[in-house]
Amino acid sequence: MGIVVQKYGGSSVADATGIKRVAQRIVNTKRAGHDVVVVVSAMGDTTDELRDLAEQVTPLPPPRELDMLLTAGERISMALLAMAIAQLGHQARSFTGSQAGVITDSAHGRAKIIDITPGRIVKALEDGSIAIVAGFQGVSQDTKDITTLGRGASDTTAVALAAALGAEVCEIYSDVDGVFTADPRIVPTARKLDRVSHEEMLEMAASGAKILHLRCVEYARRYGIPVHVRSSFSTKEGTWVVADPTEGTDMEQAIIAGVAHDRSEAKITVVGVPDKVGEAARIFEALAAGEVNIDMVVQNISAAATGLTDISFTLPREDGQTAMGALARIQDEVGYDKLLYDDQIGKVSLIGAGMRSHPGITARFFAALASAGVNIEMISTSEIRISVIVDEAQVDSAVQATHSAFDLDADEVEAVVYGGTGR
Amino acid sequence: MGIVVQKYGGSSVADATGIKRVAQRIVNTKRAGHDVVVVVSAMGDTTDELRDLAEQVTPLPPPRELDMLLTAGERISMALLAMAIAQLGHQARSFTGSQAGVITDSAHGRAKIIDITPGRIVKALEDGSIAIVAGFQGVSQDTKDITTLGRGASDTTAVALAAALGAEVCEIYSDVDGVFTADPRIVPTARKLDRVSHEEMLEMAASGAKILHLRCVEYARRYGIPVHVRSSFSTKEGTWVVADPTEGTDMEQAIIAGVAHDRSEAKITVVGVPDKVGEAARIFEALAAGEVNIDMVVQNISAAATGLTDISFTLPREDGQTAMGALARIQDEVGYDKLLYDDQIGKVSLIGAGMRSHPGITARFFAALASAGVNIEMISTSEIRISVIVDEAQVDSAVQATHSAFDLDADEVEAVVYGGTGR
Repeated sequence: MGIVVQKYGGSSVADATGIKRVAQRIVNTKRAGHDVVVVVSAMGDTTDELRDLAEQVTPLPPPRELDMLLTAGERISMALLAMAIAQLGHQARSFTGSQAGVITDSAHGRAKIIDITPGRIVKALEDGSIAIVAGFQGVSQDTKDITTLGRGASDTTAVALAAALGAEVCEIYSDVDGVFTADPRIVPTARKLDRVSHEEMLEMAASGAKILHLRCVEYARRYGIPVHVRSSFSTKEGTWVVADPTEGTDMEQAIIAGVAHDRSEAKITVVGVPDKVGEAARIFEALAAGEVNIDMVVQNISAAATGLTDISFTLPREDGQTAMGALARIQDEVGYDKLLYDDQIGKVSLIGAGMRSHPGITARFFAALASAGVNIEMISTSEIRISVIVDEAQVDSAVQATHSAFDLDADEVEAVVYGGTGR
Repeated sequence: MGIVVQKYGGSSVADATGIKRVAQRIVNTKRAGHDVVVVVSAMGDTTDELRDLAEQVTPLPPPRELDMLLTAGERISMALLAMAIAQLGHQARSFTGSQAGVITDSAHGRAKIIDITPGRIVKALEDGSIAIVAGFQGVSQDTKDITTLGRGASDTTAVALAAALGAEVCEIYSDVDGVFTADPRIVPTARKLDRVSHEEMLEMAASGAKILHLRCVEYARRYGIPVHVRSSFSTKEGTWVVADPTEGTDMEQAIIAGVAHDRSEAKITVVGVPDKVGEAARIFEALAAGEVNIDMVVQNISAAATGLTDISFTLPREDGQTAMGALARIQDEVGYDKLLYDDQIGKVSLIGAGMRSHPGITARFFAALASAGVNIEMISTSEIRISVIVDEAQVDSAVQATHSAFDLDADEVEAVVYGGTGR
């Protein structure tokens, strides 16, 4: 049997009891005949506590040092997990991101994996050991400094390792049972998906479903890694994220995978932009220079009388101040009238690979929103997704109405724990 | 000006306030024109807290993983210290033991430094940075695994780095003002020593004075590194530990440097050992095989009638069980009568380079003990030290009587804080 990579989030290893429970599950997998590589996050709220410590020292910690600090969290959890496995009579060796060969660029706090050189992991597996790897961290190729991959990136470490090791599956454990058709806190009748495609999961992650880290799904899709999202608190099957969910089954692909929502964005409108070639480019160049991530963009048709147009776009709320500053600095150059900032918005997205071959999905989606009295402020679509921006206060009813309109409701409410994903 | 190595103990960096205070002191040294390398311990009780966590997981943590766990402590303190220095407008870079080039053997939990390859530290200093190095830790030459050097070994890291970098001084900061003629908690009139020789400090450290780690002093003596022991809570001069305390001064070397005591030892007596060649060797071979560290050894003159002798020795109390087990296993082979174990003992030592040229010191020491009603159980001497084993309950009065008998008392009680050394 092949290699299994398992990733456990912080909520699964929050205390000694959790660590022992996870150790037992790892040992069971080993006893079943697999080579096991485990990626682990920091215990519970450790990362936040370390951030708080940094804040007590300085409001602006140098990114290199913040990474050095935060990586202490996984060092603690991985060593404890290796100890708990030893206590169960199996050999385990823990490895930092650097030791595991997670090579990154030098962008502290949001480093990207450039390469994985897992020589020490392979050696440990050959020795019959279980390898425990610190999630979320690596070492920069240029400066050999310790880097972190950004919040929630332990998922990415796991999938990247699975790809580098040719693992047969990457199991992502958290405190939820799998991927649901909607957030069960909003839609109690949401169903757990048994199987979902990489591309649908990618759209769901990009649309605010917090169950898997976006870069993790990108990695899994690129390298064709099957990802099994499941709970560390039960032995139930979770959700399989695979290239083709219908393969090896006699089922048809569902038209709609689910409804995602996102309350983390804000909307900026640049009012009265002269409708000339190059004006929009200048605006988005300024935002890119400030490293602001833009999501949806809408440009109104310009009023013939004035030759002016409005450009609206959405972005992470945390980038709001940076973006407003960058735009204010180019007001004279661009000659726009004013800026509007709105962070009382939410995004609701309908995702499904079946959209490609089923017309009328958009109409049914918008009809559901209209019947729930939800006003659409912006629209954006991909081949397998439709997203709308609505008033933040209407997000819940928009999600519920959409979920019902596409017959996604389960016959009965499944017992689920839906908290953070513990990353 | 040259390189200054500063070492700060855990009590000096116990919280954000302490870290900021230490950062200010480091920056002051940098502003005075020195290149500064800082070795830092884990914050406050962090190391003990990590040990507790390990204990919650398993009573027998694998040493490799325990080292991985414990080294998280310095990682946190050094990153926070680098941040605090940045906040004061200076550049600082933190380095793990591995990054700093602290190469050790593979004895997890008590690794010895084999080599220091401080290339990254030198580079950081050349760039104008302050280098912050994790104390207590290194990387094994053979396996590239993370190692720790044993409790209190951050002092050793500092002196070893000072030697490798050719530093002009190694400053050891803690919460005490320096080295005293006796523990001020027992002798309120104890005096702070301005200067003491490496060899005297070595005997004091070996005799239970906890102010400096034994291996640190050995390193300092071997490489001739001046060590300045001082408090991080004041700017007062502390105690200089140097090769020749009289050099450059017009003072004579004091006859007696101080009185040390140690309550951490136990005594084992092997009763009724056949007085034949090789019996003692067999006993101490068995102890050595169990990695038991022996301190003092006394063998009685054998009783002519029986041809039997008693062998007594002292050892760390924590090795007591191991030693008793090792000896029990060779009882039939050696043919001794029985074992006695006593951990209600204490060691009191008088230390001074002047002993060499001043006869009568021993007589005066023993007279002082006698007048205080203290019974001597064992005696051991070196060229510059006399140690006696006494009843643990009499340690305080033995130290006080000796301190007075050699006129070590100060005219007035100095205001000192004497706690742990914060390592």
